[in-house]
Amino acid sequence: MNPMPDPIAKTAAYLNAISAENLRINAFVMVTEAAAQEQAASAAKAGPGSAIRGWCIAVKDNIDVAGVRTTNGLPGGWVPAEDAPVIARLRAAGAVILGKTNLHEAALGSTTDNAHWGWTHNPLRHGYTAGGSSGGSAAAVAAGLCDAALGSDTMGSIRVPAGHCGLVGFKPTFDAIPCEGVAPLCWALDHVGPITKTVADARAMFEALADPLEPVRAPEKPRVVRLSAFEALPLEPAVAVAYAESLGRLEALYGPVDTVDLPGFDPVALRRAALLAIEADAAAIHADRFDDFSPGLRKMLDYGAKLSAPRLALALEELRQAKKAILRLFREADVIVSPTTAMTAFPLDGPSPPGHSDFMGLAVFAGAPAISVPMPMAEGELPAGLQLIAAPGRDMALLDWAEAVEGVLQPG
Amino acid sequence: MNPMPDPIAKTAAYLNAISAENLRINAFVMVTEAAAQEQAASAAKAGPGSAIRGWCIAVKDNIDVAGVRTTNGLPGGWVPAEDAPVIARLRAAGAVILGKTNLHEAALGSTTDNAHWGWTHNPLRHGYTAGGSSGGSAAAVAAGLCDAALGSDTMGSIRVPAGHCGLVGFKPTFDAIPCEGVAPLCWALDHVGPITKTVADARAMFEALADPLEPVRAPEKPRVVRLSAFEALPLEPAVAVAYAESLGRLEALYGPVDTVDLPGFDPVALRRAALLAIEADAAAIHADRFDDFSPGLRKMLDYGAKLSAPRLALALEELRQAKKAILRLFREADVIVSPTTAMTAFPLDGPSPPGHSDFMGLAVFAGAPAISVPMPMAEGELPAGLQLIAAPGRDMALLDWAEAVEGVLQPG
Repeated sequence: MNPMPDPIAKTAAYLNAISAENLRINAFVMVTEAAAQEQAASAAKAGPGSAIRGWCIAVKDNIDVAGVRTTNGLPGGWVPAEDAPVIARLRAAGAVILGKTNLHEAALGSTTDNAHWGWTHNPLRHGYTAGGSSGGSAAAVAAGLCDAALGSDTMGSIRVPAGHCGLVGFKPTFDAIPCEGVAPLCWALDHVGPITKTVADARAMFEALADPLEPVRAPEKPRVVRLSAFEALPLEPAVAVAYAESLGRLEALYGPVDTVDLPGFDPVALRRAALLAIEADAAAIHADRFDDFSPGLRKMLDYGAKLSAPRLALALEELRQAKKAILRLFREADVIVSPTTAMTAFPLDGPSPPGHSDFMGLAVFAGAPAISVPMPMAEGELPAGLQLIAAPGRDMALLDWAEAVEGVLQPG
Repeated sequence: MNPMPDPIAKTAAYLNAISAENLRINAFVMVTEAAAQEQAASAAKAGPGSAIRGWCIAVKDNIDVAGVRTTNGLPGGWVPAEDAPVIARLRAAGAVILGKTNLHEAALGSTTDNAHWGWTHNPLRHGYTAGGSSGGSAAAVAAGLCDAALGSDTMGSIRVPAGHCGLVGFKPTFDAIPCEGVAPLCWALDHVGPITKTVADARAMFEALADPLEPVRAPEKPRVVRLSAFEALPLEPAVAVAYAESLGRLEALYGPVDTVDLPGFDPVALRRAALLAIEADAAAIHADRFDDFSPGLRKMLDYGAKLSAPRLALALEELRQAKKAILRLFREADVIVSPTTAMTAFPLDGPSPPGHSDFMGLAVFAGAPAISVPMPMAEGELPAGLQLIAAPGRDMALLDWAEAVEGVLQPG
């Protein structure tokens, strides 16, 4: 999208839309109206420049915005004196911060049925999850309440909600975008990144957010592969149909998509190892303040607190070996493709389907850039995402490839 | 060094030298005479090719050589059916494996006063340490019992003994040389690499051992810096004099060497964090078989076994933050220079001086390539090393720079 000529009018329009819509979907937990109007006025005065000048951004409420309470989806919270570097970079690029969005409690979960701040509903079907943990950010973009949003992704938390809301979610290379000022969940695995309407928007956000990038050589037509371990996971029929259709169009674009083996790669076992790493880090991070957390979160942190160091060491080594195997695969292939989730959004008042984030871990422990783009769905179906993963450092190449894929999946 | 025309004669000469010398210094714990003769015969038949064809190599006894017991410096051990990939690569390049060298118990320590397999003596001064944990490998090269040796380095175990024996020790980028088949000490921090007489020899070994390398751009004249936190550590007078002389020659070669701050970098605190990571991994690796270890090692592993996962998580995060700061510094600088150790070799029958490996951790938790080259010492002093560290992935550039530095430190 292009910067609008009048950031003041656009900001006002979004603030109105939030007033009208937010009560229904609970995307925002805090709207910083006055500050947004001020920033819009500054953006209006500045000439053109950054691609995101005048964009109105929703910020996941685990990211520090100076003077605004950060809840991290938990009771209480803190009022940071300083912006997180990602917020400072957005401001420097002339973006307008509209407010803070709801998330799954402590960013540890994928549905955003937050016990402290309420449920976030999928704007495309009320009562259904917008995904998580960045559910509020995705819902805000999908409901037309902002131009783009910031999310964080430790185990799929950007890509899952983007998939469920028909959006683009981009988790960059580990540490390509600084995580300082983002409430940590798992130091080893946390990432921050954008949720947007298009891949072009994700690129514009990434360029504003990322540390300076080294140029990398990448082919125009990537070699795309599927993983046999991913292909063995069961898909909901609507997702299976859309995935088959997407693969067909991908092959027409980039040539044959072979299915390859990744030796020793077991997505379910690795999800468990990653969860263990998250529980240990989260127990260290939240230390003695589990008391006011939900029983489910408290149970996970208690488990993490009681784990032994050698048990954690073993889990981390499992993840390290998986990363090695993935990096080896990236010597032969440019892109790994999979669905983002095996199912479309499900009711918030029911249980989460098993295996909701089984496609998500790989890019996290490999530290590899991964993007979810909407698949072409049959009439009446909720959205689902196609995930593309590239080698660490190849963020810009992945965005180029994903934009071409988006062009064939969502033509016109 | 160039491959000798007659590998058979050279191998025989080394085997004779080992027979004559090894009892005194205890560099080798196992000499595989018949196998070496066979390999020499094959190497003699093959034409020229690899730079290391016909080289006679000593192998640290934590690296698997098919059919030969691996002790890892502990009682017992195992007889592996397969070569470690590094051994297979040396064989493929036409090298001859002479045998296995002594190490500090379980590769966890820096003196090689091994309680199970005896002390290794510094060939330059009997009764003094050859350093560790790859003490036997360094002693074998320094005593002229082989052309080059393999070591491993989790906290300085290649660079420290190279420094104490007047040799070149090269710890490459994390995972640039595969560690499979090398008894693990700490999965997160283990590296394998060569100990050689010259930087050119280290490069020849590295090229034979490393995975295929991506070309990297690097300036011919690197920007070299010192770290204020390193400069604050006390040096033994002989090392201080040699370090000042080395810096002068380095500045004449590459221009001014500025002293820079690395925010939050505390070598002593980080050594403790790394030791904690080592103790946790080692406790997982050695699990229930601490009983026949020395009391000192048992104490460390007991400590690791009893640590909590959140405590380990905190230590790993400390190392991760330090790595980030180091990688940021490498955007401004090409090489960090320091002494390898603050002291020359010390008597085996006394205590280890405190701070023996304080300069060693940085390159380990940064996963950065680091090399120790001999400094010019005053008459009668034992050797000490100058450490050069470069950004991860810049191994070949570091070797080029180090060769030029070697040229001014050890002219002629």
